[in-house]
Amino acid sequence: MITIDFSKRGNLSLTGFLYQSLKQQILDGTLKPGEHLPSKRSLAQHLGVSVITIENAYDNLIAEGYIYSIEKKGFFVEEFNAAGEIAEKQSAAIIPVSEENTEKTGNPAQTQSFFADFTKNAIAANKFPFNTWAKVTKQVLTRQSSQLLATQNMQGCPALRQAICQHLKSFRNIEADYDQIIIGAGSEILYNFILQLLGTNHIYAVENPGYHKIYKVFTSLGAKCAAINIDKSGILINQLEKSNARTVHVTPSHHFPTGIVMPIKRRLELLAWASAAPSRYIIEDDYDSEFRFMSRPIEPLFVTDRNSRVIYMNTFTKSLAPSFRISYMVLPKPLLALFKQNLNFYSSTVSAVEQFTLASFINQGFFSRHVIKMKNYYRSVRNFLIAELQNSKIKSQIEILEENSGLHFLLNIKSGKSASQLKEDLAQNGINAKLLQEYFYSSSDSSDFFSLPKAGAAPDAKNQAAFVINYSGIQIEDIKQIVQRIEKSL
Amino acid sequence: MITIDFSKRGNLSLTGFLYQSLKQQILDGTLKPGEHLPSKRSLAQHLGVSVITIENAYDNLIAEGYIYSIEKKGFFVEEFNAAGEIAEKQSAAIIPVSEENTEKTGNPAQTQSFFADFTKNAIAANKFPFNTWAKVTKQVLTRQSSQLLATQNMQGCPALRQAICQHLKSFRNIEADYDQIIIGAGSEILYNFILQLLGTNHIYAVENPGYHKIYKVFTSLGAKCAAINIDKSGILINQLEKSNARTVHVTPSHHFPTGIVMPIKRRLELLAWASAAPSRYIIEDDYDSEFRFMSRPIEPLFVTDRNSRVIYMNTFTKSLAPSFRISYMVLPKPLLALFKQNLNFYSSTVSAVEQFTLASFINQGFFSRHVIKMKNYYRSVRNFLIAELQNSKIKSQIEILEENSGLHFLLNIKSGKSASQLKEDLAQNGINAKLLQEYFYSSSDSSDFFSLPKAGAAPDAKNQAAFVINYSGIQIEDIKQIVQRIEKSL
Repeated sequence: MITIDFSKRGNLSLTGFLYQSLKQQILDGTLKPGEHLPSKRSLAQHLGVSVITIENAYDNLIAEGYIYSIEKKGFFVEEFNAAGEIAEKQSAAIIPVSEENTEKTGNPAQTQSFFADFTKNAIAANKFPFNTWAKVTKQVLTRQSSQLLATQNMQGCPALRQAICQHLKSFRNIEADYDQIIIGAGSEILYNFILQLLGTNHIYAVENPGYHKIYKVFTSLGAKCAAINIDKSGILINQLEKSNARTVHVTPSHHFPTGIVMPIKRRLELLAWASAAPSRYIIEDDYDSEFRFMSRPIEPLFVTDRNSRVIYMNTFTKSLAPSFRISYMVLPKPLLALFKQNLNFYSSTVSAVEQFTLASFINQGFFSRHVIKMKNYYRSVRNFLIAELQNSKIKSQIEILEENSGLHFLLNIKSGKSASQLKEDLAQNGINAKLLQEYFYSSSDSSDFFSLPKAGAAPDAKNQAAFVINYSGIQIEDIKQIVQRIEKSL
Repeated sequence: MITIDFSKRGNLSLTGFLYQSLKQQILDGTLKPGEHLPSKRSLAQHLGVSVITIENAYDNLIAEGYIYSIEKKGFFVEEFNAAGEIAEKQSAAIIPVSEENTEKTGNPAQTQSFFADFTKNAIAANKFPFNTWAKVTKQVLTRQSSQLLATQNMQGCPALRQAICQHLKSFRNIEADYDQIIIGAGSEILYNFILQLLGTNHIYAVENPGYHKIYKVFTSLGAKCAAINIDKSGILINQLEKSNARTVHVTPSHHFPTGIVMPIKRRLELLAWASAAPSRYIIEDDYDSEFRFMSRPIEPLFVTDRNSRVIYMNTFTKSLAPSFRISYMVLPKPLLALFKQNLNFYSSTVSAVEQFTLASFINQGFFSRHVIKMKNYYRSVRNFLIAELQNSKIKSQIEILEENSGLHFLLNIKSGKSASQLKEDLAQNGINAKLLQEYFYSSSDSSDFFSLPKAGAAPDAKNQAAFVINYSGIQIEDIKQIVQRIEKSL
């Protein structure tokens, strides 16, 4: 039976110490790959702790891939591919957006490092299957050398586009010909193509609140932009109509940053808007649809659309890592013809080696395995964080707004403080988070939505603040401390 | 002593057969790595062939990296890193632009395959050091894993920018801070940045004749373009002045496609034009400066410039392979400040793995070794092709215009045929080449330059045609046959 010396736990909770000890025993081989672990009940009896303590520790270990469970059989130590993969897990640091990133190009005042940063698209470094990626890269470099040196198809290599088609069919029910797919080195490149395709002499609409980078890309390329308010179903069609926009960018499967999933009624209204006049298009940004946790995700607009008015976009930035610059879009056929006519002089923006590697990574099943693993991991982080918040000392002051989807949710906090003061106090306690109102485009924008104070209106009368909690970069074992730090800030 | 059975040479020339036989003996180990080969004279005596036959075969083998020579010591079989690298050399095919490339996006009529294609940026597949690249990639994936997952600096990773600075210092005498460098997934991305930086509400000038893709990128992004004629010193400053352009794109170190190297007088005039009014900029495209064969290359405009009006651009497309999507530009400091202010919201367009791999490839000396090897190889191809043309049956009908630089030259052919007819007859004989006049922007453009017929004026009175010979994709052993096919076409 497993031995744990709880006298050595120091400041750690029982669960935290148990989790650390079991992890250590797996890493040093005391617990062997495939070994059947004791049931929660028997281990609890043996160690003299509660079943819930064992359960929490087991859950963390499952989430991080150290152990797995088989229904009615119990818990087992994971089989690792290679010693190297365990070694990676030992150096388990979360990768923050590197300091490089703000160095010189960013605002130096923001290089402060936080105990937990909810504003970044960080991912857990120990989650990426480096060994597998290295193995597939090596295969590609040795077996496909002659193909690798050739100039690639400007839309992306057919092997990768075919692999994406398969993935889209099984994950998103999208039936597309691989020829409709355009691969680009990041979504920004694809927006750039779209603007060259549709022109910059009309108005592009974006969601308000929303992801400001889209707005910046559009305006930087010379287009006019209109920020359209949303309600609890998503973008407001009457405002969209009034704006005279011809193209609209939306995130229907998981609105950024509110997390709203656009219901079918609003979707049909949006599609009807597009079909009501010639040359109206919808850019459907499906950026984190891989991470919907409950039930089957809602069908993309691209599938519901019957009039070829939807450009579907997705990225491997969320599902692999932000440093892999591979995104793609699926063009409706009439736009595809226009694209080939006007933009086929461009070169592909993604290197052949990475395109072939990713194609092989998908085709060998590594990608879907990785997505499932990450989804389980993110679900555990999310559930644990939400549970800890809901059981915290401040549980009566908080409200969590989420729809079981994506890598962020909203945390609404009522306190005696203004939103900006609370944000500052959180930062003082090592917690970095952005206010929802920061994602609005101007302080006069309506935000009756969620009964939140108007953007910029701080200190506000209502004494409540909604924070966008982008949790993909935090560690499970830090969550208890994160919640304590939030409690302390109120 | 080496044994060669010339009775088996079939249709091959003595040199061709000797070259093939020696290569085979190196590949199958009959001739061992490091082995001292007989002198040209003694091998010629032994085999009963002329010294020139041996010399040509040895030259080919040196060019392809099978043997090397040490002054006053003689010729030796190359040491290969690994069995794999020899195997690669066996499958020595030249990589044409893959059929994929024109499939669906291109004109299907152009998918015809040619015996020799002088229109493509193909590179010799057996020249790329796949094993080294794979080794460095593996090192990067295992040693730098945590850095690889972080969001990268939007200008590119500092390690690569520092490596490029070193390279620019030693190869081009450019003193730049690494912070002035912006890395992009191909030059088109960088042009795109430049247009967002300088705006599209003024005229961009391009060289006429020139690389039409630049013009397409500029106009596709909404800028107005003016095509400015060139004379034997390059772009005409008085026409540039008259055009009211504010930005000009030039290829001073090796004009595309004529090969002209801009002399210092014209360079100073061009720099004076830029300084004569505010907000005038020169984009200096130094795309194939690594491949200057004689003497030290002329200093870049970026170095001569004293008024921060030159944006320097270069690419790894020519020096590595077109499928590596890595280019860079060096911004003068005032523009750098503007870039950081306006465009720092963008993400880097090159994946972290390739950036770190290339940085390490440069820092470990593999890049400069590769460039030197390729330069020697291209020089051999070029010299052999030119020599064969100058010794051919049509030597009195041809004129070669080149300046010992870059990967293309002009071949002017006088025949009884119109330019378009000759082009067609060459294609019938498996030789694909573009006419110089195809690089002019309109048929009314002046081309008294080289006393060539006006663009589009076919059949022409002068019965001469200038072809752009982009030779980087042809094989040395095919050259004799290529020249025979050209002879046949006249």
